[in-house]
Amino acid sequence: MVKVTLKGGAVKEYDDNVTVAEIAKSLGGGLYKAACAGKLNGRVVDLRTPVTEDSEVELLTFDSQEGKRAYWHTTSHIMAQAVGRLFPDAVFAIGPSIDQGFYYDFDLPRNLTPDDLTAIESEMKKIIKEDEPLERFELEPEEAVKLMKEKGQPYKVELIQEHSGKGEKISFYRQGDFVDLCAGPHLMSTGKVKAVKLTSCTGAYWRGDSKSKMLQRVYGISFPKASELTAHLEAMEEAKKRDHNKLGRELGYFTTCDIIGQGLPILLPNGARVIQLLQRFVEDEEQKRGWLLTKTPYMAKSDLYKLSGHWDHYKDGMFVLGDEEKDDEVFALRPMTCPFQYQAYLNKKRSYRDLPLRYNETSTLFRNEASGEMHGLIRVRQFTISEGHLMCRPDQLEEEFKSCLQLANYMLETLGLAEDVSYRFSQWDPEDKDKYIGTPEQWDEAQSAMKRILDHLGIEYAIGVGEAAFYGPKLDIQIKNVFGKEDTLITIQIDQLLAEKFGMEYVDADGKAKNPYIIHRTSIGCYERTLALLIEKYAGALPMWLMPEQVRVLPISEKFLDKALEVDRELKAQGIRSTADSRNEKIGYKIREAQMEKIPYMLIIGEKEVQENVVSVRSRKDGVLGSMSLETFLEKALTEIREKTK
Amino acid sequence: MVKVTLKGGAVKEYDDNVTVAEIAKSLGGGLYKAACAGKLNGRVVDLRTPVTEDSEVELLTFDSQEGKRAYWHTTSHIMAQAVGRLFPDAVFAIGPSIDQGFYYDFDLPRNLTPDDLTAIESEMKKIIKEDEPLERFELEPEEAVKLMKEKGQPYKVELIQEHSGKGEKISFYRQGDFVDLCAGPHLMSTGKVKAVKLTSCTGAYWRGDSKSKMLQRVYGISFPKASELTAHLEAMEEAKKRDHNKLGRELGYFTTCDIIGQGLPILLPNGARVIQLLQRFVEDEEQKRGWLLTKTPYMAKSDLYKLSGHWDHYKDGMFVLGDEEKDDEVFALRPMTCPFQYQAYLNKKRSYRDLPLRYNETSTLFRNEASGEMHGLIRVRQFTISEGHLMCRPDQLEEEFKSCLQLANYMLETLGLAEDVSYRFSQWDPEDKDKYIGTPEQWDEAQSAMKRILDHLGIEYAIGVGEAAFYGPKLDIQIKNVFGKEDTLITIQIDQLLAEKFGMEYVDADGKAKNPYIIHRTSIGCYERTLALLIEKYAGALPMWLMPEQVRVLPISEKFLDKALEVDRELKAQGIRSTADSRNEKIGYKIREAQMEKIPYMLIIGEKEVQENVVSVRSRKDGVLGSMSLETFLEKALTEIREKTK
Repeated sequence: MVKVTLKGGAVKEYDDNVTVAEIAKSLGGGLYKAACAGKLNGRVVDLRTPVTEDSEVELLTFDSQEGKRAYWHTTSHIMAQAVGRLFPDAVFAIGPSIDQGFYYDFDLPRNLTPDDLTAIESEMKKIIKEDEPLERFELEPEEAVKLMKEKGQPYKVELIQEHSGKGEKISFYRQGDFVDLCAGPHLMSTGKVKAVKLTSCTGAYWRGDSKSKMLQRVYGISFPKASELTAHLEAMEEAKKRDHNKLGRELGYFTTCDIIGQGLPILLPNGARVIQLLQRFVEDEEQKRGWLLTKTPYMAKSDLYKLSGHWDHYKDGMFVLGDEEKDDEVFALRPMTCPFQYQAYLNKKRSYRDLPLRYNETSTLFRNEASGEMHGLIRVRQFTISEGHLMCRPDQLEEEFKSCLQLANYMLETLGLAEDVSYRFSQWDPEDKDKYIGTPEQWDEAQSAMKRILDHLGIEYAIGVGEAAFYGPKLDIQIKNVFGKEDTLITIQIDQLLAEKFGMEYVDADGKAKNPYIIHRTSIGCYERTLALLIEKYAGALPMWLMPEQVRVLPISEKFLDKALEVDRELKAQGIRSTADSRNEKIGYKIREAQMEKIPYMLIIGEKEVQENVVSVRSRKDGVLGSMSLETFLEKALTEIREKTK
Repeated sequence: MVKVTLKGGAVKEYDDNVTVAEIAKSLGGGLYKAACAGKLNGRVVDLRTPVTEDSEVELLTFDSQEGKRAYWHTTSHIMAQAVGRLFPDAVFAIGPSIDQGFYYDFDLPRNLTPDDLTAIESEMKKIIKEDEPLERFELEPEEAVKLMKEKGQPYKVELIQEHSGKGEKISFYRQGDFVDLCAGPHLMSTGKVKAVKLTSCTGAYWRGDSKSKMLQRVYGISFPKASELTAHLEAMEEAKKRDHNKLGRELGYFTTCDIIGQGLPILLPNGARVIQLLQRFVEDEEQKRGWLLTKTPYMAKSDLYKLSGHWDHYKDGMFVLGDEEKDDEVFALRPMTCPFQYQAYLNKKRSYRDLPLRYNETSTLFRNEASGEMHGLIRVRQFTISEGHLMCRPDQLEEEFKSCLQLANYMLETLGLAEDVSYRFSQWDPEDKDKYIGTPEQWDEAQSAMKRILDHLGIEYAIGVGEAAFYGPKLDIQIKNVFGKEDTLITIQIDQLLAEKFGMEYVDADGKAKNPYIIHRTSIGCYERTLALLIEKYAGALPMWLMPEQVRVLPISEKFLDKALEVDRELKAQGIRSTADSRNEKIGYKIREAQMEKIPYMLIIGEKEVQENVVSVRSRKDGVLGSMSLETFLEKALTEIREKTK
């Protein structure tokens, strides 16, 4: 018999080798039907996995991220099986689940058409109906290679050969006539998958390397209920309308062009204005909270990055200028601001009385992202960020961490993004020590300190193993874009390693030289990404204080142009960003255009308005507000701007 | 007989082959004694030069820049002769005149000491007393090489060999036992030089190339009168005190560090604050004047620079990322913003009604300057500048050029730099066409347009042949630093070539597509350089609106700390950058420190001030102002800030 501790704490006894699936069945309540995978002592496993000793068991349904992952991964195998039936020469690359659905990369004799996707979907439905079980088996590497060679799968052979040095067996999953190299876990059988939709097909290089062959990547998604699929597809349609990568271009926020390059957007006057406003807002707020502004160079000699550890741990992501073998001096563009701001700290002797010392900077960073990973303003090669580094004593760490978090939350609140974020406690991966500097003891200490602080502040967080910076753990504030893709917006990190590396010290009250703790933090994160999220959140109708154009004055005809220009001048004198639409166009046309451009207020000027010395106000939010004196409107508008009304 | 037209227009007749010196003598009034060189039909020549045909002749005294150049160049030869006498093994490199004095680079068996400089000076005085004539002679290249080889001068041999391909004779100057390769012109004899001072000795690489041998560079200066030399040396002592490269570091404006690299200063909180304030001031003023802000990437693929012409005409000054032979994509950091802002123009179809279109940007630029040329914040590898590009129709060109100039002048006025600038009309060099794009006709047209505008505006300018941008002529606003070294601060350029290259068009009233004129302009120029000039101009005591710390509150003892903190809070609430000096130090010490830091106002709080509810005010400018209510002080301070009082 084995003792099984269920989620929630209940303990039950089962026969030895009871499977996770059998446990689910025993618990009733539809759990067996709903389960996608299990968690056995913290490890995500197939439902078929036997329990061989006293264990903790959790059942993962589609409601959990891990359950979804198994569900979508199985659907990806079903798609591959269908493609194999329709294209017997198909060569398979990789087919993982992703944040929203799954994809599979295929090497096919011809390009897929939309009709092909429909045909593949039909074939998938047949495979689902066949309800074949998915079974795991393992082979020695040589046998695994042999099997895949027999099946004419060179990409799989390449993947196996890379793993074969580790002395581990290679795992496969089989469903009917289809076998795939795979670590799992998977659903019990193909019939568990219900509603499926293949959403798109794009080109993708094998391993993302533009020197390799271009494959065809088919994306899809699946749900246990047809209604969920429909709701998802509708949400995606709605999302497309809000997509900053479309709307942001249409509304004149940004553009890109081939001759400059991927991931290097050009912020047009609307986009540049919003970023200017955000930057001033952030810098002023940081100044109020005791941060000292710096402005440090965007490049440095490789020596600096060698000292910081970036050269060893981050070089692939950096733009390097020059060649170490040929040139006297090799420079690199900075991927982070840390080692630059440290030079400001090092400029003077510091005493315990000088701490905390808080440096902020509106900092431009450069990261050499792969071409395929660029996305509008969200994933770019150059971006500007509100970075800061705070040097403090151990006794100040919690208070200062809290103040960084308060600042971040204040920013999120003000921008209206607070409800959309979640927290991730990003830790190192003790299985992959080479990625980090420092000893296990130092990591334990830093992570314990962060855990204590987070728990004390009562923050609910997910844990991200292997998501830490190479020098310390992070609290990441995560946000999803309109398509559900998650990215880090803000980060607050505890670092007890770099101060020593850089010789940063303070003389403590006891007269001894000590290394300070360093908090690395951002306060609204990358400005370009924030702009993208705001465009998506507000579908382009940004809060008035951030709108590039706040008021448009529309004369009904040329006769009222002088009055319109006068009103425009008065608005401008009050600091309002207004324009007068002086074109000789119909008023209806002008109104529609202002609506399309999401202008917060239109002031319409005609015969009646001139006679009564008023303006007719149309609000983006509340429609026609009727006529009022310019003073009344100004008071309303200025209040909305001052209070940063959302 | 030859007819000689003198400066001012008088015409005199002389015998054929009269020398410029003889003409000077004939004119009397001490001109022969004062003359350093002559200008014969626009060419600067030795006084010994004979006039062989009817000519325009001008006499150049030490009062003219060209006269000074000849004077200093001769002094440099005298120094080389003296070094040769003291160090018979001396090898001579180059020894030009510079903006302020001269230098000569020597390869010597040992490092020079201050005593050596004194000894060299003494030897120079002897040579001056000997009053040897300086005589020019020319040799065929082979003979020239032979002569220099005999004298053991390999650097001279190298220089001659470079020139020898041109089929021209090589010119030398001889004075007594000393012969130097030299184009001249020179004074008539060594005795013309009066007061001499050798000012410093530094290392310098042969041809500025760090792979070559390090030579010893001796700097010096000379004047016709001892009193002028004394005045100059005193001015230099004063200048050293104002030198931003010293004062700016002491006052916490910036620092540099080896591990980051030369020409990459770190702006500390004081410096970053001033640049933030300047940037906001400039961006706001530009916005008021109808400029539209952009924010474009700092790098682009080489394709962009190939199209713009930067790749052909400016590549040596650029930082290139990657290797064209190895990499798919080669990027380069931008040295200018032009081709980036053009993409904003190209984002839409433009009509003649849309013009002028004015784009401004707070733009960071990168220029790969040679290591030896770096200087504090004035000559750097990365800098931030208020760049703008204005697209307009031909009929708008003059008005828009004028508005750019007005903006620049407004900035200079506000900063108090207006009286320190001069104007340079920078033209192309028709002798060196490879440096430019476009045809001679296009250059004539663009330069004529600029000349018309400048003359119409009544601007007094010098002409700088060969100082144009590769795409068009410039009006450069020049400023000297505290040591008299001139640099360009602001530039306004007319460009009629790049729009066509980039396919930038507008549809004119006649329905035809045309290329706009482009005005390239800066409005205060590079922020780092402006900060340096302000520090030097005001000896660190910047106008209050720009001071990082505007008011310091000083409690006389701990007893009055609470009141001081309260006053500090009230100041901050009014937007004043204040701090309270809460340290347990003597009030005299605190006052002296605030004075050293050039804080505009100190508010001193003691028994009397608390009882009477006043503050005792000490002004940086006017000393002790006595006690007043905080409201009275606030009004005074806020007015000074608002009005940007200098």
